[in-house]
Amino acid sequence: MIGIFDSGVGGLTVVKAILDKIPEYDIVYFGDTAHTPYGTKSAETVVGYTINNIKFLLSQGAKVIVIACNTASSVATTQVLEQFALPIFEVITPAVTQAVEASANLNFGIIGTRATISSGIYERKILAHRPTARIHSVACPLLVPLVEEGWLKKRETAMIVKKYLQPLKTRQIDTLILGCTHYPLLKNVIQAKIGKRVELIDSSICIAEGIQHFLENQRDIEQQLRQTGRLSLFVSDVTDQFKKIAQLTLKTNISFECVKI
Amino acid sequence: MIGIFDSGVGGLTVVKAILDKIPEYDIVYFGDTAHTPYGTKSAETVVGYTINNIKFLLSQGAKVIVIACNTASSVATTQVLEQFALPIFEVITPAVTQAVEASANLNFGIIGTRATISSGIYERKILAHRPTARIHSVACPLLVPLVEEGWLKKRETAMIVKKYLQPLKTRQIDTLILGCTHYPLLKNVIQAKIGKRVELIDSSICIAEGIQHFLENQRDIEQQLRQTGRLSLFVSDVTDQFKKIAQLTLKTNISFECVKI
Repeated sequence: MIGIFDSGVGGLTVVKAILDKIPEYDIVYFGDTAHTPYGTKSAETVVGYTINNIKFLLSQGAKVIVIACNTASSVATTQVLEQFALPIFEVITPAVTQAVEASANLNFGIIGTRATISSGIYERKILAHRPTARIHSVACPLLVPLVEEGWLKKRETAMIVKKYLQPLKTRQIDTLILGCTHYPLLKNVIQAKIGKRVELIDSSICIAEGIQHFLENQRDIEQQLRQTGRLSLFVSDVTDQFKKIAQLTLKTNISFECVKI
Repeated sequence: MIGIFDSGVGGLTVVKAILDKIPEYDIVYFGDTAHTPYGTKSAETVVGYTINNIKFLLSQGAKVIVIACNTASSVATTQVLEQFALPIFEVITPAVTQAVEASANLNFGIIGTRATISSGIYERKILAHRPTARIHSVACPLLVPLVEEGWLKKRETAMIVKKYLQPLKTRQIDTLILGCTHYPLLKNVIQAKIGKRVELIDSSICIAEGIQHFLENQRDIEQQLRQTGRLSLFVSDVTDQFKKIAQLTLKTNISFECVKI
């Protein structure tokens, strides 16, 4: 099956996007809610969590891994590609590919957690495609807790989004990468504050398209995947708040199994 | 020495209060920054982290333990008192003792993390002392991330504090327990929004006084404590942001040792 993990609930936006595109494949999801959030922690610690998460997904029969977390994708991809011999997708590359195609003026904005922005990975990948690009990055550490509180439409959230986006607006970016899997839940307020002319790049949609394309071209791997449309959800900690946000994201009633890894 | 732990940086307000009262004793502090925050996690998970933290402090030579975290104090005290045979202080009891002494009308407000408020421990302890008390509790989950971002004086923080405190203001509480070790850093804005007639109970100060009193009366334990005024700080993850907030709290330059537990 397709194994997907995130630090918590954010990666469910990726699950939703994959279910919308290719609902036939079995999915096993792991949300590392006992260690959430990753975005405020050090690279070393996030690498350790990432390796444990992948080992758990392999034990559940995953044949393809999706790192549905920008922080883990930013700081741990190189190490896990060396350590594990199966296809591993991260959320950075498909978002960058789509962003460089979308941008007319090559004037990019990136928002993400502190760990993602500090890693500089979006800048490096964009510059590898478009050496003349201008890139402006802003860490937005309060957006994850605001999403996890379900404060999606509150005035305070809109004000905080506006404050974070102000330097990007001043620099007249034309393309904004939502560099955290929580941010698609704030898409409306982000679009309103950055302005409707700016194209938003939603990494959850980009990665779903990337996986679809991969499976169409890699039939040997595609044939190893079970296709009964089953979704299994595991977390390392269960709280009522988590269930609420998970339901909001997947728009359906869901049950979780709690595992200690 | 005195062993103190918290989920992260908040417990340093307790360290500061203890250093102000009884600076002569050696202190070993552990901030479980690899698992922070505790307040949004389940009781079971927090109990597991608490046991590991105490074991680490014992390995460092602690003879007295201070749970400088309201969430861990709320959900894990009973279990750890059964499991460990040494004096263990938590932050709830001294705050309640001081609150019931301070209140004229027995109309209490409590603010804390979601886990602390769900536990109902403050209500139970206050009612045990004052069965006729009225108690109003509000979970304020966004205050920890706001403090950890250092947004102590921002307008958005003031608005969010106001929103959380509104139901307590309406009920005309006369005493407000700051049920989270992060909140003393927001004392000014909390006092401004709840009104100057409301007495704020700062658990970090209450616990420092409680420990001082205990050591004056338990000379056999007091004599086991080294008195060279040394402060050793350990964390399970180090980030620049953590260093910044730690410095802000202790008002001095500090160095940490990172340990995996």
